[in-house]
Amino acid sequence: MSLTNGSPEQAARAAKTSSRTLATLSTDARNVALDAIHHALADHREDILAANARDMDLAKQLSANGKLSASMMKRLDLSRKGKFDDMLQGIEDVRGLEDPVGRVDLRTELDDGLILQRQTCPIGVLLIIFEARPEVIANIASLAIKSANAAILKGGKESTESFKAISTVISQALDKTEVPNHSIQLVTTRDAIDPLLELSQYIDLVIPRGSSDLVRHCQRKAHMPVLGHADGLCSLYIHSDADKEMAVNVAVDSKTDYPAACNAIETLLINEEVLESIFPAVAAALIDKGVVLRCDPASKAASSKHLSEEQAVHVQDATDADWSVEHLDLILSVRTITASPDSTSAVDAAIEHINTHGSHHTDAILTADKATADRFCNAVDSGCKFWNCSTRFCDGMRFGFGTEVGISTNKVHARGPVGLEGLMIHEYRLAGQGQGAAMYGGGGRQYKHKRLPIA
Amino acid sequence: MSLTNGSPEQAARAAKTSSRTLATLSTDARNVALDAIHHALADHREDILAANARDMDLAKQLSANGKLSASMMKRLDLSRKGKFDDMLQGIEDVRGLEDPVGRVDLRTELDDGLILQRQTCPIGVLLIIFEARPEVIANIASLAIKSANAAILKGGKESTESFKAISTVISQALDKTEVPNHSIQLVTTRDAIDPLLELSQYIDLVIPRGSSDLVRHCQRKAHMPVLGHADGLCSLYIHSDADKEMAVNVAVDSKTDYPAACNAIETLLINEEVLESIFPAVAAALIDKGVVLRCDPASKAASSKHLSEEQAVHVQDATDADWSVEHLDLILSVRTITASPDSTSAVDAAIEHINTHGSHHTDAILTADKATADRFCNAVDSGCKFWNCSTRFCDGMRFGFGTEVGISTNKVHARGPVGLEGLMIHEYRLAGQGQGAAMYGGGGRQYKHKRLPIA
Repeated sequence: MSLTNGSPEQAARAAKTSSRTLATLSTDARNVALDAIHHALADHREDILAANARDMDLAKQLSANGKLSASMMKRLDLSRKGKFDDMLQGIEDVRGLEDPVGRVDLRTELDDGLILQRQTCPIGVLLIIFEARPEVIANIASLAIKSANAAILKGGKESTESFKAISTVISQALDKTEVPNHSIQLVTTRDAIDPLLELSQYIDLVIPRGSSDLVRHCQRKAHMPVLGHADGLCSLYIHSDADKEMAVNVAVDSKTDYPAACNAIETLLINEEVLESIFPAVAAALIDKGVVLRCDPASKAASSKHLSEEQAVHVQDATDADWSVEHLDLILSVRTITASPDSTSAVDAAIEHINTHGSHHTDAILTADKATADRFCNAVDSGCKFWNCSTRFCDGMRFGFGTEVGISTNKVHARGPVGLEGLMIHEYRLAGQGQGAAMYGGGGRQYKHKRLPIA
Repeated sequence: MSLTNGSPEQAARAAKTSSRTLATLSTDARNVALDAIHHALADHREDILAANARDMDLAKQLSANGKLSASMMKRLDLSRKGKFDDMLQGIEDVRGLEDPVGRVDLRTELDDGLILQRQTCPIGVLLIIFEARPEVIANIASLAIKSANAAILKGGKESTESFKAISTVISQALDKTEVPNHSIQLVTTRDAIDPLLELSQYIDLVIPRGSSDLVRHCQRKAHMPVLGHADGLCSLYIHSDADKEMAVNVAVDSKTDYPAACNAIETLLINEEVLESIFPAVAAALIDKGVVLRCDPASKAASSKHLSEEQAVHVQDATDADWSVEHLDLILSVRTITASPDSTSAVDAAIEHINTHGSHHTDAILTADKATADRFCNAVDSGCKFWNCSTRFCDGMRFGFGTEVGISTNKVHARGPVGLEGLMIHEYRLAGQGQGAAMYGGGGRQYKHKRLPIA
């Protein structure tokens, strides 16, 4: 890893060159580099924490002037109990994952002695833009080396001192390994981002991990594909046959487990048939957890009728804008779903709402009926469709991927929680004995196209 | 299918709406629609050929004025023997392919009664821009319906009458099926392309099938991903231990089987050790097939020494520009590969040339040594790496995919020849019994992450 002093183009070109070497390294060579980083960071814990303390000093000044939030301060602080060890453990965890490179997923005998093979290979050069948390740099460097991709990293400016210290340690550690030093480069100035986003001849994929503004900026400016999601506008639809206790539990978990997460729900869709039976219990439980409900007229009427006066204070009128807002806070839009006169069923009306207002991230239905759940899952245009469980399960670690690169709402390459697989593409290898295409068809030979077992 | 009279935005929005219905249709419903198209086109053969004759009349005038090439005339002509039947057969072939929708490729038990499943689903709305050949519209409409994607089609203006006739027939046929009419829309004006390329809220993927100028235009302008390749600058490297007869056969096939194809070679890299032994036979065979060689000094010297005077006329001096040119004609750049003094091996020098000048499409090596072939295949940054066979095998039909959407040099989503799979993305479905994320970790429960067999 190196701190980039050159131009964005020099950095990107060096990353591309390094990526070709990195792509040819063995599993062992890459794992050895991960071990080296792990040991070096452990050995230089004090230096790194000293650098982090300098970031914290500046942050405290900013915070005192109201220019930095308390939650940002907390995320910046690498000296908090367990945080440094978690960073080290994260490197070990990534090292322990199965090598994603060179996995064969198709083998076909095109003809005698003409064998086609499809296998995974690294994408090439990644540009990863992330927020202030200093430990993320170690995590991303690990993911890149494990997946044999070169990476250019740009972190939040509040962690500059920590990043520099960590990248210096990583750089020295890599120098003793086969991984080229320029495989991982740290960019420290924000000015570099826009020029980098134009260098599609060197950079193959951008992964912005941060605010929706950052993601949208990348989506608009990048000349290469962008992996991720700008918004997480997730909905939970409670159908007429849902279980009441399940509705309460899943709604509370989906909204309150971590309200600022992209997989928390922003909208509750409630079937009109259960407005008087299930909804009051759900509304009461949410309000008791501190949630403010922005209700349409029908759900507001049901609230007024069934909630205590104290609870009803937390019920507000929804405006049309609420159906398209990612609150990222303890606020929930509530809309009543009715079957329409033109024979659209209620589940179809819920699907229509979600496909119109949602962000194609994660949407859930609560229903006792599998056919209704299937209809919902088939028709909702989202990366993740959940039945009778919380939207909060949408997560790479919870899905068992071992790590998470991000959650994608893209329609190509990778969608939903993205693990190491999302950093890979495939290549075709064909091994023959001198065959030419003219030998086939008119040339008399016929293709066999016999599927072979994966070795 | 409908002829679009409305604005590009109206067309794209209608396609998006239709795509959601299309995505929920059964395999049978989509196959029935393909049958309906097949029968309707067969029934209206005469009307369509009459429309094609009108295109041909105009084309003949343009041709007489030198404004249209003979090969374009030939491609336009749907009345040529077998062409109409081939178009019909193509629809049947696509119908016969395995349904690409809903294929499960991952099942994980996250916990008791909490089952995660990953399955394929259509991408959504495709914008497919193609050249004049009138039969392509039927092929693309079939691929879209089979893969449950809506598609907006824009064909070359020379086939306008044929396209209109075919799309009218397809539209009438679809009206009697469950496939929404706006699933397939034909755009007839070139003006519509640029506005369509900006409508990323409705269109998910652009597939330009035509000139490199068209592809590059789409890559530059599109706000959504573009699948394809602008250039096919393929190389063949003949290593020092290559078999002479194989070298002659593979070089001739790779260059002359179809010189205008993207998978034909543009550059021959010849190891200096075989300049006097293998190269003269290869050069002579290529020249006898009508190829002009653009040689570097060393290969030119070897040519002069070994070729007949008559053959040597077809040897020219290469300029630096020749290493980066897609000739698409019977012209081949020839460069001598030498091991360098700084210990770079010859195969590494060949790899370096290919990664610097190639278009990451298809590159081949001829060598008797598997380790050398592996080194080449590991380090060359191309979608297809071939050992001891012709680059011309890079093709979806030859690879056994049953159809070909195009050949991609992209680094994400799909690379190499793309079959129906390239028109799919995956989605995650999670079915539970009321679980919430807070139950796990701090909540006491542990994830099982047990991989389940694919049902």
